[in-house]
Amino acid sequence: MMLKGKVLIAQGGGPTAVINQTLAGIVLESRKYGEMTRTYGAIHGVEGIVNEDFLDLTQETSHNLEQVAMTPSSALWSTRIKPDSKYCHEIFQVLQAHDIRYFFYIGGNDSADTVRIVGEEAKKVNYDLRIIHVPKTIDNDLILNDHTPGYGSAARFVVQAFMGINLDVRALKGVYIGVVMGRHAGFMTAASAIAQKYPDDGPHLIYLPEREFSMEKFLADVKQMYDRHGMCIIAVSEGICDAGGVPIIATMRKDLEIDAHGNVSLSGTGAIGDLLAQQVKARLGISRVRSDTFGYLQRSFVDCVSDIDQHEAREVGERAVQMAYWNNGNGSLTIQRTGNYSVDYRLAGVEEIAAKTRVMADEYINKEGNHVTDAFRLYIRPLLGSGLQIPSHLRAPRVPKLLSNE
Amino acid sequence: MMLKGKVLIAQGGGPTAVINQTLAGIVLESRKYGEMTRTYGAIHGVEGIVNEDFLDLTQETSHNLEQVAMTPSSALWSTRIKPDSKYCHEIFQVLQAHDIRYFFYIGGNDSADTVRIVGEEAKKVNYDLRIIHVPKTIDNDLILNDHTPGYGSAARFVVQAFMGINLDVRALKGVYIGVVMGRHAGFMTAASAIAQKYPDDGPHLIYLPEREFSMEKFLADVKQMYDRHGMCIIAVSEGICDAGGVPIIATMRKDLEIDAHGNVSLSGTGAIGDLLAQQVKARLGISRVRSDTFGYLQRSFVDCVSDIDQHEAREVGERAVQMAYWNNGNGSLTIQRTGNYSVDYRLAGVEEIAAKTRVMADEYINKEGNHVTDAFRLYIRPLLGSGLQIPSHLRAPRVPKLLSNE
Repeated sequence: MMLKGKVLIAQGGGPTAVINQTLAGIVLESRKYGEMTRTYGAIHGVEGIVNEDFLDLTQETSHNLEQVAMTPSSALWSTRIKPDSKYCHEIFQVLQAHDIRYFFYIGGNDSADTVRIVGEEAKKVNYDLRIIHVPKTIDNDLILNDHTPGYGSAARFVVQAFMGINLDVRALKGVYIGVVMGRHAGFMTAASAIAQKYPDDGPHLIYLPEREFSMEKFLADVKQMYDRHGMCIIAVSEGICDAGGVPIIATMRKDLEIDAHGNVSLSGTGAIGDLLAQQVKARLGISRVRSDTFGYLQRSFVDCVSDIDQHEAREVGERAVQMAYWNNGNGSLTIQRTGNYSVDYRLAGVEEIAAKTRVMADEYINKEGNHVTDAFRLYIRPLLGSGLQIPSHLRAPRVPKLLSNE
Repeated sequence: MMLKGKVLIAQGGGPTAVINQTLAGIVLESRKYGEMTRTYGAIHGVEGIVNEDFLDLTQETSHNLEQVAMTPSSALWSTRIKPDSKYCHEIFQVLQAHDIRYFFYIGGNDSADTVRIVGEEAKKVNYDLRIIHVPKTIDNDLILNDHTPGYGSAARFVVQAFMGINLDVRALKGVYIGVVMGRHAGFMTAASAIAQKYPDDGPHLIYLPEREFSMEKFLADVKQMYDRHGMCIIAVSEGICDAGGVPIIATMRKDLEIDAHGNVSLSGTGAIGDLLAQQVKARLGISRVRSDTFGYLQRSFVDCVSDIDQHEAREVGERAVQMAYWNNGNGSLTIQRTGNYSVDYRLAGVEEIAAKTRVMADEYINKEGNHVTDAFRLYIRPLLGSGLQIPSHLRAPRVPKLLSNE
């Protein structure tokens, strides 16, 4: 007999463009099974659980769920709280009180760790609970996954941004530095490489947290590219670190914000871009130097989404419910690439995923540590989805000069 | 008999998402008339003219022109040079040498001034020249125009950004400051108001260069909104000034860059957002405060475009050629709103437009000077184009609590 009881859904960590696809996938699939008596959504993640702040999603219209699925960022809102054992115990008590037997926690590696601890609580007292971590993160840093829902759409934003920047900088020349999200993993920053269509298109340089950042090497690289192209477009990860592993941003700011996970706040400030721009101006004597920090736009911009990402985000929600219902599954749902391009989903042990970070494979980074390889281009292309606009240049012939002799 | 000779097209100032529509409109229309013997494009604006750096656009395929028309930023590249009389004289000599009889300069109010001076040069020596300033600027600051090509698409970027920010900040709470382009005119920043769908949606506060910016009033406003909503989303123009008319950015930075037009460089740095965020943190004691400077993304992001803007940008190019050919017209092409929503085009005297700046009408700004009015919402809506995505929230009922008594 199938396990009978309520379903609970919550989200942890940063928003993505497709997290509500996963939410809709779980709600619509769970409402098909009589044993899943109600489907609740916790408001603000684990905070909503301990406070019993639940929405009864059994009473949400399918039509509105489909509208919400198309809306970026978490419709259930989120939390940055990292539960300790005591907090997990409180979570578990609420699950028991409401007879919740299926718990789906959508999130990254920190959320997977919460799933692990709550699952252990349930086991201790023999409370029958299906508990599944459902992946999402724009950082693409979950191990055992080919990629994670949310990454393709955020990467698409980065590509579209750099396509435009290529055209903008070409029109007025100079040096441009675009600062992209990514604390430990450079997947987001690396996506910028797909903006290169014409041979002299940028980004000409890409700096990732996987490689030590040296200011001297950076300035030498910029000078070389600027001399070659008359311009230089650079993609840099907010998480770049010096030889000692200290984030470049931490070498310059004293008022650092630390979150519950012990992470330094990197976004929401233009500091690192400004620092690099100042160095290029001062040390290389280039006058037109601009930097933009893509910030929150890259994870929540409305109407910038990969259809592949949408599709997979919906499926991980649906499959999580199916695995919990039909296979009594517990663990972390993962995406496996099975062809070029096709995927399938597999349940991994949550302890294998929890609190671990995947970074860019060595084969994805060039030898000089300042760009990506074709292996990475092949890896990322399908994730960006279809219909990506391709910029075009004029190709008309030059007119012979009449006045000057060149 | 119609004036016979070559056609020259150039662009000045910052790129927009639809400037190449105007370019395509001029090229395709001018190629219809036998008297327009060739159609040239100057590379890097007036610099390309004095250097005789021309592309022969008569030999560009119509198919590629249509691809280029869909590509943001200027395909002919641009310039920030502001020609003086001597420079204009050089321009005129090149026009004469190449028998250019039709000159279309796509640009803002500075470009209009160049058109004015070159036109006077031609008149002095009785050289028969049709010379038309064709409008473009994301700033929407040309007088005698209802609006300018480029504005609608850039404004749409701002709307989509704030729609996403509303969802993102709601998920994790706090204060968010988005810094939008606009030196003297607040049209771009004001567009953010269209992101408000639900009654408590942001931006809750909008600061425009048309109103004096007071840090004390700003902090009081933020506190009020934060107390009311538990969050506060703010749109602020990069051009905000203090009571003395000094840009807020100039009150804090010493290394200011000045361009040929005497303008201080406002973009390409996160400085103003960081300043405001630090003030909110320090003075109001709010811990989660983030700022993003939208920077160059807002004027060149690929695939974020208003169809109305595209359509009109194409038409201003086409109409400019028609007016020069059929009406022997000289001057500045303007867009007039004739209905709700329909437009028509009219030639104005270039001296009426040149070097003048239009700002937001008083009726578009609320009494407190920290938001827009419904008159502005009515004004801007058609310019944003069709198919704008509308975010949706969940509306499921709350679940009664079992453990806590609230």
